[in-house]
Amino acid sequence: MKSFRKELAFEVKRRRDFINITPQVNDALAESGIREGLLLCNAMHITASVFINDDESGLHQDFEAWLEGLAPEKPYSRYRHNGYEDNADAHLKRTVMGREVVVAVSGGKLDFGPWEQIFYGEFDGKRRKRVLVKIIGE
Amino acid sequence: MKSFRKELAFEVKRRRDFINITPQVNDALAESGIREGLLLCNAMHITASVFINDDESGLHQDFEAWLEGLAPEKPYSRYRHNGYEDNADAHLKRTVMGREVVVAVSGGKLDFGPWEQIFYGEFDGKRRKRVLVKIIGE
Amino acid sequence: MKSFRKELAFEVKRRRDFINITPQVNDALAESGIREGLLLCNAMHITASVFINDDESGLHQDFEAWLEGLAPEKPYSRYRHNGYEDNADAHLKRTVMGREVVVAVSGGKLDFGPWEQIFYGEFDGKRRKRVLVKIIGE
Repeated sequence: MKSFRKELAFEVKRRRDFINITPQVNDALAESGIREGLLLCNAMHITASVFINDDESGLHQDFEAWLEGLAPEKPYSRYRHNGYEDNADAHLKRTVMGREVVVAVSGGKLDFGPWEQIFYGEFDGKRRKRVLVKIIGE
Repeated sequence: MKSFRKELAFEVKRRRDFINITPQVNDALAESGIREGLLLCNAMHITASVFINDDESGLHQDFEAWLEGLAPEKPYSRYRHNGYEDNADAHLKRTVMGREVVVAVSGGKLDFGPWEQIFYGEFDGKRRKRVLVKIIGE
Repeated sequence: MKSFRKELAFEVKRRRDFINITPQVNDALAESGIREGLLLCNAMHITASVFINDDESGLHQDFEAWLEGLAPEKPYSRYRHNGYEDNADAHLKRTVMGREVVVAVSGGKLDFGPWEQIFYGEFDGKRRKRVLVKIIGE
């Protein structure tokens, strides 16, 4: 069994954004040399998400509006977590979108359906944050 | 290390439905011959879900009503994704329910609690869509 | 490839609570002797969750209030599942929080960002329930 580990780093200029990280994950997989196995990709921070969906800007605007409806950023005082922080909403939004994805590796490729792309979802940005790629297999 | 890959295909007659796919996943596991490891089962389409819950029809009606409350299908114009599409709600519903499950394989069986069953959640049906089963182990 | 399996058991006194189970998962990992691989930790019951977030009591109160807003416990009659049961809301809350986490194992440790902690989320407590830890690697 082989294993491979790589960190990706992102510094998102806005509080919230979605970034297609499929190219970086593909590069990590190529670097690993693993052809059959499982790939884990997870946010290392608890106010960010890694998820799989469509790379379509209208949908991303829908995600933003929908998440803001489910877990509004403001007023900050609505959340008990926001004593020293202002990011309780980011913890909730990341919960809806998910911390991680596990992707099959087959024939040395991400074993994806036609529209699957991996995104980093930032909900409390303007600082450097990390994503972990861990691959095991052969 | 052994690895095994199988696609399952579903053509759901309605826009939305939940299908218990535990028998097909069990068959894939038996076919693999793997006795200890991890099994990934994921929707290959971004308007569908694979999740684990109870096989109880009342609960499935509750899921349907609840998801429709969180991310209504109509009016289609409420979503920016719905320029050429009408399925933005399906992307959101799938996000709540999740893309994938990872299940332990122990002694050649799905290592489940008493009520765990695997479901395919379709949110934009009436066409053929696929689910991936990938198993690694020994 | 090595594999390791361990069940953890919890009997939560209240209907709902969040318990930091990172110490028990760390112990399981140490016991396994696995240094590189993937660790799956999942609720074995469908009204409970395993998730990763911050160990901060204000945030946990926010989770409780937020989940109760998204999927209220009462009136029990609002859910079709509640013919013989009263826990439909627990199935929905667990869906939002997630069944499982997959964590990278690197150098014999849980490969975590600075604030990541693993929680058991109970949504229908007052009875003994189990969590599965399955680790594969070398």
